[in-house]
Amino acid sequence: MDFGLSTDQQDLHQAARAFARAHLGPGAAERAHDSGYPRDVARHLARQGFLGLTIPTARGGQGASLLDAVVVIEAIGSVCPRSADVVQAGNFGAVRTIAELADDDLRARYLPGLLSGDTLVGLGMTEPEAGSAVTDLRTTVRRDGDAHVVLDGSKVFTTHSVEADLFLIYARFGPGTAGIGSVLVERDTPGLSVGKPATFMSGEQWAPLYLDRCRVPAANVLIAEGGFARQMSTFNIERLGNAARSIALGQLAFDEAREHATRRHQFGRPLCDFQGIQWMFADMALALESAQLVLHRAAARADHGLPSAHDTALAKLAANRAGFEVANTAMQVMGATGYTQESLVEYCVRRTRGWMIAGGSTEILKNRIAEGIFDRRFSQRSGR
Amino acid sequence: MDFGLSTDQQDLHQAARAFARAHLGPGAAERAHDSGYPRDVARHLARQGFLGLTIPTARGGQGASLLDAVVVIEAIGSVCPRSADVVQAGNFGAVRTIAELADDDLRARYLPGLLSGDTLVGLGMTEPEAGSAVTDLRTTVRRDGDAHVVLDGSKVFTTHSVEADLFLIYARFGPGTAGIGSVLVERDTPGLSVGKPATFMSGEQWAPLYLDRCRVPAANVLIAEGGFARQMSTFNIERLGNAARSIALGQLAFDEAREHATRRHQFGRPLCDFQGIQWMFADMALALESAQLVLHRAAARADHGLPSAHDTALAKLAANRAGFEVANTAMQVMGATGYTQESLVEYCVRRTRGWMIAGGSTEILKNRIAEGIFDRRFSQRSGR
Amino acid sequence: MDFGLSTDQQDLHQAARAFARAHLGPGAAERAHDSGYPRDVARHLARQGFLGLTIPTARGGQGASLLDAVVVIEAIGSVCPRSADVVQAGNFGAVRTIAELADDDLRARYLPGLLSGDTLVGLGMTEPEAGSAVTDLRTTVRRDGDAHVVLDGSKVFTTHSVEADLFLIYARFGPGTAGIGSVLVERDTPGLSVGKPATFMSGEQWAPLYLDRCRVPAANVLIAEGGFARQMSTFNIERLGNAARSIALGQLAFDEAREHATRRHQFGRPLCDFQGIQWMFADMALALESAQLVLHRAAARADHGLPSAHDTALAKLAANRAGFEVANTAMQVMGATGYTQESLVEYCVRRTRGWMIAGGSTEILKNRIAEGIFDRRFSQRSGR
Amino acid sequence: MDFGLSTDQQDLHQAARAFARAHLGPGAAERAHDSGYPRDVARHLARQGFLGLTIPTARGGQGASLLDAVVVIEAIGSVCPRSADVVQAGNFGAVRTIAELADDDLRARYLPGLLSGDTLVGLGMTEPEAGSAVTDLRTTVRRDGDAHVVLDGSKVFTTHSVEADLFLIYARFGPGTAGIGSVLVERDTPGLSVGKPATFMSGEQWAPLYLDRCRVPAANVLIAEGGFARQMSTFNIERLGNAARSIALGQLAFDEAREHATRRHQFGRPLCDFQGIQWMFADMALALESAQLVLHRAAARADHGLPSAHDTALAKLAANRAGFEVANTAMQVMGATGYTQESLVEYCVRRTRGWMIAGGSTEILKNRIAEGIFDRRFSQRSGR
Repeated sequence: MDFGLSTDQQDLHQAARAFARAHLGPGAAERAHDSGYPRDVARHLARQGFLGLTIPTARGGQGASLLDAVVVIEAIGSVCPRSADVVQAGNFGAVRTIAELADDDLRARYLPGLLSGDTLVGLGMTEPEAGSAVTDLRTTVRRDGDAHVVLDGSKVFTTHSVEADLFLIYARFGPGTAGIGSVLVERDTPGLSVGKPATFMSGEQWAPLYLDRCRVPAANVLIAEGGFARQMSTFNIERLGNAARSIALGQLAFDEAREHATRRHQFGRPLCDFQGIQWMFADMALALESAQLVLHRAAARADHGLPSAHDTALAKLAANRAGFEVANTAMQVMGATGYTQESLVEYCVRRTRGWMIAGGSTEILKNRIAEGIFDRRFSQRSGR
Repeated sequence: MDFGLSTDQQDLHQAARAFARAHLGPGAAERAHDSGYPRDVARHLARQGFLGLTIPTARGGQGASLLDAVVVIEAIGSVCPRSADVVQAGNFGAVRTIAELADDDLRARYLPGLLSGDTLVGLGMTEPEAGSAVTDLRTTVRRDGDAHVVLDGSKVFTTHSVEADLFLIYARFGPGTAGIGSVLVERDTPGLSVGKPATFMSGEQWAPLYLDRCRVPAANVLIAEGGFARQMSTFNIERLGNAARSIALGQLAFDEAREHATRRHQFGRPLCDFQGIQWMFADMALALESAQLVLHRAAARADHGLPSAHDTALAKLAANRAGFEVANTAMQVMGATGYTQESLVEYCVRRTRGWMIAGGSTEILKNRIAEGIFDRRFSQRSGR
Repeated sequence: MDFGLSTDQQDLHQAARAFARAHLGPGAAERAHDSGYPRDVARHLARQGFLGLTIPTARGGQGASLLDAVVVIEAIGSVCPRSADVVQAGNFGAVRTIAELADDDLRARYLPGLLSGDTLVGLGMTEPEAGSAVTDLRTTVRRDGDAHVVLDGSKVFTTHSVEADLFLIYARFGPGTAGIGSVLVERDTPGLSVGKPATFMSGEQWAPLYLDRCRVPAANVLIAEGGFARQMSTFNIERLGNAARSIALGQLAFDEAREHATRRHQFGRPLCDFQGIQWMFADMALALESAQLVLHRAAARADHGLPSAHDTALAKLAANRAGFEVANTAMQVMGATGYTQESLVEYCVRRTRGWMIAGGSTEILKNRIAEGIFDRRFSQRSGR
Repeated sequence: MDFGLSTDQQDLHQAARAFARAHLGPGAAERAHDSGYPRDVARHLARQGFLGLTIPTARGGQGASLLDAVVVIEAIGSVCPRSADVVQAGNFGAVRTIAELADDDLRARYLPGLLSGDTLVGLGMTEPEAGSAVTDLRTTVRRDGDAHVVLDGSKVFTTHSVEADLFLIYARFGPGTAGIGSVLVERDTPGLSVGKPATFMSGEQWAPLYLDRCRVPAANVLIAEGGFARQMSTFNIERLGNAARSIALGQLAFDEAREHATRRHQFGRPLCDFQGIQWMFADMALALESAQLVLHRAAARADHGLPSAHDTALAKLAANRAGFEVANTAMQVMGATGYTQESLVEYCVRRTRGWMIAGGSTEILKNRIAEGIFDRRFSQRSGR
């Protein structure tokens, strides 16, 4: 275990990558340009055991480690970026929250479909005016008799909002962080409406969610009052999936650029023969490898019961930067070829750019890391 | 004239910007997402006198200076990016080459339509295997009797190739740089076919041009054998238009981000209240202002009869980097809002990225600048 | 003339540089490694008319423009860095404040010696606990009868403190910015003691000043209560001198590295033949030229009655960064040769580093620029 | 064990750091400003078992791993930089070459003194005209009868050249890489003269070595004809020591800046309260931690029999950059205090700067990494 993957993990990486090359490489470019969620890929990956990797076998998952899941995302994402999104959706985020925190009934109702790739859940957190400040959450949930709760509010930027079957909606039972909870809301629930979709630079779509006296069985409350703190580690873990995809797409772009620089000639020489180009590759390799180590360390430590917001923030910051910088440099090496939508590298640039914003922006991560360094909490409210 | 624009140029900037806000601001986002060339805008700009700015009045232009043209591109592009492309097309590149180098008959045939915005010309230079090395040009042109020439070869990445009415095709009469010439070829000429379009990250489309025994009147030869050297200054000038648009789009993104940072609140404070965000703006402002000075100096010197490949390369390098970095930072400031295609900032990031590749990539420019510094020519062929 | 120096200024640059090469180049390295102020150089430069450049002729100066002074500093500093310090000392800072704000008697007493290079003045502003916040100034000055004032407090980091004949001490008559004034204190005044010297990375020395009931004639009060605001433009102007020296030392390092890269061979080729090295030079050239334009613009605008804290902050930020980055890259090009104290480049790295801290740190400048961008004052006190 | 140190290595780090704080912290600043080799520290460290760490116990060493040695250098160097040089000298470089490659007699003669800290060896590799190209080595060694060899040539930039008792001189028996060998030459050998010392930016001194028919017993030949290849892994390992010291000094500077930012107030708030400063620390932490992981991985892999020039080049590049950038940013945070020679941070900036040049410059490392990426050898001779 010399700062590298175990033999088993190396095997897992090989197997996942071989599978991806055989089954997901063909069509990877088409999927990248299709905003729709590839449900066929989801069912295929589910059959291969790539969904629910970190969920205990007793709950229908694979009982693997976080680092295993990171390895699988990297292997698959470096062949087909959109398929890595499926692995993310089937392992981190709302799926994991449900697997961990739902009671037996709720879990039995929703988890199997999610793990088979048949259903898709979206996580409704961000609101029009709240930005990165969770505590500014305004959507409310109130008890309506014993059997129901009622939600009011709206959500923006929700991943999969255009086609999710189910939403995990964060809402406020009462004031403060302790007042925040979450509720599972099916798409066709009266009172929930999905607005006009908008498109991100990456081609992903999202639509605003409007909750207008949206009445849901009380059994669908996943996190009740006071439970929000238990949830924070899940968010940290989700960041690792975002980081792993950044590395994966950076790797894909690097591989394409290396191939291009070997094959393509300029002034009678292969591109890789030019020292300036060589140095660009040296910088890309260092960025990718060092960020990957920071990410693997964060995942490995989390597996050993030491999930740390500090480690996670470092990993996401390193990986997001490396992914984008490498994809962007790879595009530069490839010139007009890399700038064309025919090239997956063009997609990688657009997509990796988004992860510097989504799921904890670069700026929020730096705030968090500084808190770890100075071992104190800096309130953003008053500038103190 | 203290390292700034003259009063007349300041007035020109104000007038162009006021015109743009009134007439081109509405619809700017739609135009950015439409790959088609906005011919209505071209005719409108022509009526305002914004096409042919640098072309002598005797030839139907405005007789203005290069710096004037740069100022107009900056003013219009900071409101409507695609309209700045029209100013570029109507002032630099093939239009200017025709105005400068065509004989009276040829000019009379094509220039009026180009200056009225009714016709559009594309410049066919790059070839599948030649990349940045002009001297590797393989398309041939040979005399076929006194009255005709015949072209064979193919072109890629030609701007406006999907809809241009006319192409200025660079081709080889014989070996070496001296053997390179250019010919005007109308779109419907037998032997010219336009292939399947591809799309750049910016949304711009291009289609390969195939020339298969394409027979054209000899009168359409714009540059005959031995005339290529006269053309090089035109290429330098074209680089200034590319640089001016980089600055313009950077400015647009900066303005949008400033507005956003003033209006948008996080943690109960406007974004501009956060020191980290403030410093991002300080860096953006410095990048834009310093690159703009380098660009204005290059244009002003060119107007004084000192067009310099070195100055031009510095200007394009500075402006391309500043435009992209500022647009990219502006997106970061705006978060998911800036990452959405609804925002022009998202377009500015994609578009400015392309100018680091097109019309003299960052790498080619650095090669060129080094030649100026060491006052020698470094052959790229042997690595010497 | 467009975005460049006037013919006269170009001549001035040539003349100053020719003078510097002939008289100051020999000994430049020795001076750089000697912490002492070169009084012989000061007298020589005074005789050449390079001190008091921006001071009106009626007051004993040369009546030249700020941009002229910047040009002279650049010309001389690119040959002998320490001699540029003399030009700085004889033109900006305390000398200029005295020339502008002192009454006739006070000016008559001190200015001639300063302009002849015979006496040296140090400016006592920073205090142990106040850092960049002028308003935290704690040194007090109180009226002691009509004829005297008494100062108490201490100063750190004072330039020339080890050997200045005279100090311009900023002190507080009362609360607030309006309460700040300044007093000229001769070195041998009882109550003023100069502590143990410390040495900066650059080799410059400074010593703490202790004022313990230091009694001075009231006639030595340069700025009385309420006059501090008039002084701020002088500080802005001083920043330009700091910026000009950054450019000068960057230019010196660039020239040395260019010479080295032309002469020195590696692997059988001159260093300048390697593309990676060429690109380092392209980046250096762009950094220097663009920062110089920003600096010249700020100086030219100040000459036209528009001294602007925003322009000045941009110029100092650009020049300080460019100077250090270029010197640091030049050292890298030169390898162990550049890392040796025998090389002036080694000195340039150490010295330019200091200007990112002294006279308005990079961080303070970015705060200031952001205030210009958002047209509001951001208090640093509460984080708002 | 997961991407981290083992428990034993953590204990070793603690012990070495505790020892350093108790015995080496006092005097650390004085040692940094003294160009002399601290022989008292060498003997002290030898008694503690910190010299010869990676040398087998059978040969008088400690039989520890490379990673152990890296850990010790990091621990000691983050308290007293110059003491880390002693650990380097007593573990890597010439000492290790002698321990590995010398025959029993030669080893018995020289190794004990080196491991006890009583004698010091310098490595004479670089020559005035050869720069980074080992194969351009011009110093010759020829057999002079059976019992002697004779050396002719000169060496520059030799570490410890001013006071080493012994030199390991690389010289050429014949043409090509295969012709390179090395010989141990005692300082007082006739024909060896040590020239006038020069001083590096770091304060380290070196003196040129002149070999003029320098006659040495043939038994002192360490590497004979054809043996040079066996030596390359030793050079790779030496790079790790250089990298480890970069990390150590970066850590020291980081710790000092953190302390400063906690204690020092500006505008009524501790420096660490400012978001801009916080983000500087976040970037510093990420640079240090990620580079350290790359370094630890390279060392751990080398311990497992996979010493790799690629891994080593990545590690040195990452660590050298991180060390300098962090020290330089730490200085910026500390302002004039950090810029003063009283502060060890000032020394760290000057010293870490040198490691980007010494022992494989940044540029040479990027060349090497590119060769690993493209799995081919790029000749620097012809640019191919």
